Amino acid sequence: MKLVRYGQPGREKPGIIDADGRIRDLSKVVKDIDGEALSPKGLAKIKKQKVDKLPLVKGDPRLGSCVVQPRNFIAIGLNYSDHAAESGMPIPAEPIIFNKAPSSICGPNDDTMVPKGSTKLDWEIELGIVIGQRARYLSKKDALSVVAGYCAANDVSERAFQIERGGQWTKGKGCETFGPIGPWMVTADEVGNPQKLDMWLDVNGERKQTGNTSTMIFSCAHIVWYCSQFFVLEPGDVIVTGTPPGVGLGIKPTPQFLKPKDVVTLGITGLGEQRQKVVKFKA
Amino acid sequence: MKLVRYGQPGREKPGIIDADGRIRDLSKVVKDIDGEALSPKGLAKIKKQKVDKLPLVKGDPRLGSCVVQPRNFIAIGLNYSDHAAESGMPIPAEPIIFNKAPSSICGPNDDTMVPKGSTKLDWEIELGIVIGQRARYLSKKDALSVVAGYCAANDVSERAFQIERGGQWTKGKGCETFGPIGPWMVTADEVGNPQKLDMWLDVNGERKQTGNTSTMIFSCAHIVWYCSQFFVLEPGDVIVTGTPPGVGLGIKPTPQFLKPKDVVTLGITGLGEQRQKVVKFKA
Repeated sequence: MKLVRYGQPGREKPGIIDADGRIRDLSKVVKDIDGEALSPKGLAKIKKQKVDKLPLVKGDPRLGSCVVQPRNFIAIGLNYSDHAAESGMPIPAEPIIFNKAPSSICGPNDDTMVPKGSTKLDWEIELGIVIGQRARYLSKKDALSVVAGYCAANDVSERAFQIERGGQWTKGKGCETFGPIGPWMVTADEVGNPQKLDMWLDVNGERKQTGNTSTMIFSCAHIVWYCSQFFVLEPGDVIVTGTPPGVGLGIKPTPQFLKPKDVVTLGITGLGEQRQKVVKFKA
Repeated sequence: MKLVRYGQPGREKPGIIDADGRIRDLSKVVKDIDGEALSPKGLAKIKKQKVDKLPLVKGDPRLGSCVVQPRNFIAIGLNYSDHAAESGMPIPAEPIIFNKAPSSICGPNDDTMVPKGSTKLDWEIELGIVIGQRARYLSKKDALSVVAGYCAANDVSERAFQIERGGQWTKGKGCETFGPIGPWMVTADEVGNPQKLDMWLDVNGERKQTGNTSTMIFSCAHIVWYCSQFFVLEPGDVIVTGTPPGVGLGIKPTPQFLKPKDVVTLGITGLGEQRQKVVKFKA
């Protein structure tokens, strides 16, 4: 199943994509695409619906983040060896975990706002994992059983904030509009093996990133297992799993960063596409 | 006003402390001590109540976290110069920001669970700031206007996870039970100047930390202003503001870490006291 949220920011409704790619309204079935809907019980309830009988959503509404703003928006750093190399960082021995502010979450096609004082705005296509069950101290073999589904994500980053402002990476990762996720959350059963998905990202139509989740250093199962050793994961939590090579920071000899009017497009096999226009700070 | 949450984990009710230090039930006034209740409108509604007419809560119930589990649980690192020195770190030029997993939030007197594989469990008394209004790009002079109130916090930390497991600090900061906050959230009007509060922490009755918020490197106003340059802050978000000297990691010549049966007690002027018993991992 492909679950979506559609409508104006803050007033999104839950929906599901039908066989013809149209949005059907799920408001009568679930409150929102939240922890409750993403639980095994919630997903089973949605699965029982006859999709073609659900109300067809007219027009071409804005899409919100494919799941409700989570509590814990976790990110994995340097999870593709080529990206670690282009960033001038060693390949990590264990997953690197950092956090994106939950308030950075936005719709897949919302504008990316250049933060005040930004000089090094960058892109990162990533596979997102959506958690469907409370999880702590998982075993490696059961780790994927708590996953509700997957989505495309852009781990938008401000490199000066991330690297040059002291301490931890979080300053450059959680600005407003830095977390577009979607268009859909595709349920785990439909995705099957998450380690064979092609991914790409263009800036102004020029290919910047090409990758496949098969080259992750740490697999999705490893990441979910690993995170559960340090945190209690909760339904609705989102983990973005690192980016393949080709970010702006890594371009030689001169890094390339995003500026107003640039357009970023990206996609992952089966998980849909995103499109963000870069805009100046809006008050 | 002193706001509390009382009752069993996950089923807490909102309450307010009366002039005699007893809990009065607020369930009929607000749903919970959440973003809505913490907004200026929510706090004004609570303020209008005649506290002595609210139902008296009988017995001695467990206290939950003084505010609902936030979305963004932000922490400031090395914000007291003596603590930076004892940690062997330079005094930061700008606030260091990291994240604690929201699922680490717990009641002020809940047991602290030793995580699996933990060897270096440590304590950190801190002043917590609770945000009451959506905030972005605040001016320095207006920064405190978005603060709903303050609370005591223990930024429980696992130093091996934090420092020796690669990358960012978050692994050692967000384990289950690592975020006791409360007993109360005291509203900003009642706290007045947050930069003159005494704080202390004992382990097994022995004084470990003594400090005063007057010696913070970056004041509460500075911290809230600074965070708002990088993230959108939302009602209910909690920022813990760093710890004074005296953590276990800093004890010379041999650091001291917590073990099962240890008891940590702590308090901040006007914000009440906490008591945590350290226990083994519970399945």
